[in-house]
Amino acid sequence: MVQYQQIDRTFGALSDPTRRAVLERLGTGSATITELAEPFEMSLTGMKKHVRVLEEAELVSTEKVGRARRCSLGPRRLEDAQTWIESYRENLEGRLDRLGELLESQKGKKR
Amino acid sequence: MVQYQQIDRTFGALSDPTRRAVLERLGTGSATITELAEPFEMSLTGMKKHVRVLEEAELVSTEKVGRARRCSLGPRRLEDAQTWIESYRENLEGRLDRLGELLESQKGKKR
Repeated sequence: MVQYQQIDRTFGALSDPTRRAVLERLGTGSATITELAEPFEMSLTGMKKHVRVLEEAELVSTEKVGRARRCSLGPRRLEDAQTWIESYRENLEGRLDRLGELLESQKGKKR
Repeated sequence: MVQYQQIDRTFGALSDPTRRAVLERLGTGSATITELAEPFEMSLTGMKKHVRVLEEAELVSTEKVGRARRCSLGPRRLEDAQTWIESYRENLEGRLDRLGELLESQKGKKR
């Protein structure tokens, strides 16, 4: 159940373009909330909310440095989300292949 | 921008365990809302809402058959979500590799 909740948070965090852009930005190095907010012309409050969602998903870590809050990539690397999508697609493709084989074999019988 | 909104919907749709389970169920074949709701002990209204989210993300298609609404997998196969995660992770790994090389070369200089 814990696993489920974590992957829910991962996908939820990725469902917003600003949050995906923040992850890409932090991939180049850590940044303060102010630095993150600037290119988006976003209020600090707005950016703080996005960072909080990313932090709850463990995709971002933050620490207070002086008066600023410095953000960097967290312990999670989207493995769980990638694994779920991949296994879902593989499973689906396997079923479609078997359906194709079944249709082929039916065609063969009709001939 | 349209692309962005679509991937937002894809990730948003995947952020719920019931919706992920519905996708897995529909991978085995189409089902009515009633059939989908049953194993989750969920109200029809609740399941309809989940199906609507999946439909907006184009992950599920529905059609009215008599009095029932039949659901099947939609045109999208999570390609966009998979592509985003993969390119993000590859990019990140590339940066970590280069950082590792830089640290190695610095160690070499110190010797």
